Amino acid sequence: MLTYNFENTTEVLYKHLYKCIKNDIVSGILKPGEKLPSKRTFAKNNGVSTITIQNAYDQLVSEGYIYAIEKKGYYVCELSRMATVPKESNIVYDIKIPKKQHYEFDFSGNRISPDNFPFSIWAKLSRDIISNRKADLMEISPAAGINELRVAIAEHLKSFRGMLVDPNQIVVGAGTEYLYGILVQLIGKDRIYAIENPGYMKLTHIYGQYGVEPVYANIDSNGLTVDGIANSGAEIAHICPNHHFPTGITMPASRRYEILSWANENGNRYIIEDDYDSEFRHNGKPIPTLFSIDMCEKVIYMNTFSKSLTPTIRVSYMVLPAHLANKMYDKLSFLSCTVSNFEQYTLAEFISQGYFEKHINRMRLYYQRQHNKVKEVLSKSKLDDKCEIIDNDSGLHFIIKFKTDLSDEALEKALQNRGIRMKALSDYGRNKDNIEQHLFILNYSNINIEFLKNAFDEICECL
Amino acid sequence: MLTYNFENTTEVLYKHLYKCIKNDIVSGILKPGEKLPSKRTFAKNNGVSTITIQNAYDQLVSEGYIYAIEKKGYYVCELSRMATVPKESNIVYDIKIPKKQHYEFDFSGNRISPDNFPFSIWAKLSRDIISNRKADLMEISPAAGINELRVAIAEHLKSFRGMLVDPNQIVVGAGTEYLYGILVQLIGKDRIYAIENPGYMKLTHIYGQYGVEPVYANIDSNGLTVDGIANSGAEIAHICPNHHFPTGITMPASRRYEILSWANENGNRYIIEDDYDSEFRHNGKPIPTLFSIDMCEKVIYMNTFSKSLTPTIRVSYMVLPAHLANKMYDKLSFLSCTVSNFEQYTLAEFISQGYFEKHINRMRLYYQRQHNKVKEVLSKSKLDDKCEIIDNDSGLHFIIKFKTDLSDEALEKALQNRGIRMKALSDYGRNKDNIEQHLFILNYSNINIEFLKNAFDEICECL
Repeated sequence: MLTYNFENTTEVLYKHLYKCIKNDIVSGILKPGEKLPSKRTFAKNNGVSTITIQNAYDQLVSEGYIYAIEKKGYYVCELSRMATVPKESNIVYDIKIPKKQHYEFDFSGNRISPDNFPFSIWAKLSRDIISNRKADLMEISPAAGINELRVAIAEHLKSFRGMLVDPNQIVVGAGTEYLYGILVQLIGKDRIYAIENPGYMKLTHIYGQYGVEPVYANIDSNGLTVDGIANSGAEIAHICPNHHFPTGITMPASRRYEILSWANENGNRYIIEDDYDSEFRHNGKPIPTLFSIDMCEKVIYMNTFSKSLTPTIRVSYMVLPAHLANKMYDKLSFLSCTVSNFEQYTLAEFISQGYFEKHINRMRLYYQRQHNKVKEVLSKSKLDDKCEIIDNDSGLHFIIKFKTDLSDEALEKALQNRGIRMKALSDYGRNKDNIEQHLFILNYSNINIEFLKNAFDEICECL
Repeated sequence: MLTYNFENTTEVLYKHLYKCIKNDIVSGILKPGEKLPSKRTFAKNNGVSTITIQNAYDQLVSEGYIYAIEKKGYYVCELSRMATVPKESNIVYDIKIPKKQHYEFDFSGNRISPDNFPFSIWAKLSRDIISNRKADLMEISPAAGINELRVAIAEHLKSFRGMLVDPNQIVVGAGTEYLYGILVQLIGKDRIYAIENPGYMKLTHIYGQYGVEPVYANIDSNGLTVDGIANSGAEIAHICPNHHFPTGITMPASRRYEILSWANENGNRYIIEDDYDSEFRHNGKPIPTLFSIDMCEKVIYMNTFSKSLTPTIRVSYMVLPAHLANKMYDKLSFLSCTVSNFEQYTLAEFISQGYFEKHINRMRLYYQRQHNKVKEVLSKSKLDDKCEIIDNDSGLHFIIKFKTDLSDEALEKALQNRGIRMKALSDYGRNKDNIEQHLFILNYSNINIEFLKNAFDEICECL
């Protein structure tokens, strides 16, 4: 007769009993086909109630460890092939998480200072949404995003970028990485995609996720060249015509028409226009997008709220040419939108009530001031003689050219040893040898001006 | 001399002038190389200030339509190859959005009633997070999700599912669809993935996104069979052992060990355990997961907050075996987590403060009551004689077997004509012919009991 010890258990009795019997089955003490004691005898023998036994047996039956035959009793199931399952764990939970290096001063950052996020407005809008839109918050979002948000984005694009866009052309997703995945499905995995060289090299990984191995197209001082794209053999060009990353080049109108003409030469060609930080042009009105001068459904426009609001709310969007939008509705409507309704509605209100425009204006001023302060501190530092700023009136970073004999790699290393993180332009090139040396990227979006002089002094000593 | 009409413009003057000149350049009225009038003459001639002209010229220069030669003046750029760009738009914005059919009564729903979402607690926690965690909200999330959320999920899995999990094994993402993408990258696109037949056929599309063409493995009354998976030739099996979708089968322990043994036979094999609605088992304690009896790092555990909270907050997670977690940190750390920090922190608090458990308990009761009410209404309706309920004490749906000669397709159509949506089990089968007919899925998660009798009467008339 089975007897188990109930004395030292802190568990509910039936649970304890269930575990004891299960262990005996798994370890083979109770054999397949063996009859278990009747509930009454078992209860008496172990000094517990029959209800406890019943509950334990029920659980074992529902998990398939034992089975019942009416009016006869309970029997142990056959757990066939169990022998091939090792009894003891051989798992070593040795999970290696890459350590984040800490830097005293990080010129490569892509972070928004908590002082610059409109928390109180965001909190208010979230609260309003939760109070007033309960039913909408529980309604599944269309694959391309909630209509209200797409209408708000279309309005924003009209007033801010002069773009005339049907909200149904807009696809909202949790980050541009995710949207590239959709795009690759719409355009095709078997097509040739080009990345600018130098350019946003992370795209290599992103395309790689979707089974696409991109090619690289050279740029000159006006951005992507038609020769560069033609030589790469690509059909789809990813470009940042309004503020090239990381050089900061703005593509002039003549080049834009050239690139559009290249796209028009062949039905398979497209241009992905990445407008990632166009909101922060310091002077003049923003440069019109390639999308707005495209008459042949060749340009896919991409933008994100990562730079203009914060990268920690994951919202990006793309504007598809009408025929690709139709393909999206036709083929990919099964997708679930990756952005939560709560944030889609909050963001829609944030834009349509005018807070987004105010925020952009405030941030543009802030970045302009940061930009000027950085230049001012630099002009008073020893480093000033050993460098030259290559500026472009836009975005959150500029290029600084160091007068040094050190290779970019050596200089980065030397800076790193002093706790300074700064990336070279050549890090963003495919063939580093072809990229001009000594050009470094100074991102001023979230640096502490107070410590800037020290950082410049440290850099100076490294050169 | 260029003369433009400023009389009827409502725009800022320089903007109007800029557009006029740009149009003349694009349309070829102003030729490449042509010199523009000097600012002073131009201003005088048009009756505007030289500052207006200066601003317009500046904008045109920054966009590359004109260029300046010092002490000489402004000249029109060459917009080469422009001729190949059509002048007139040939876009027809004819975007076809699939119409959503409206149903009077939907038994196929996957929606949470607004009455059942804990809005006030969610609002309170969001507010607290925004007030107290500003810096954390602006800090980029690791690819696998914010640590606090992963710790909270690990604790939940321990107390609720008896699973011992290192938070670093957990990967959080915006929906399981997205997580499958990560999984396919970790395991490999070139491997063979199986879907249960019948089963969650949407996986065909989801795998398809990542370039994987899945195979189909047959199930019997205990779930996936070893023969089924062996015959499919698959290396990776996706299964719902705790509550098969849509049949509701719970896989007994013996079968679990068999399937685990199958996986252990070959180093390339894995099991994806989809535990999508395990929280809502009506009786007894939840069935232990396959993950917890796996000793050989063969099981990937997946779950989502879509069923347990709402599908409109996009949060799912998976628990990776340690070696796959290491691969994730090694190869995919470049990914941006697809869930916003705001919701990750709110959800972490929701779980760790015990609200999630309370919510599940409340919902379990609610679903149990719904389940009983549906049965009660059915027992009193005419339909009762024409059907049989195949129940399984779990989840948000049961199977109803109709006594009818109609094919599943014909019955679905007939129901649809009466505004009733109900899906047949055979809709979830790969070869419909092999799947038993007349079995329909009755999802009671969000149906209105008040109108249920009518719906049953309508169904009865269709049979």
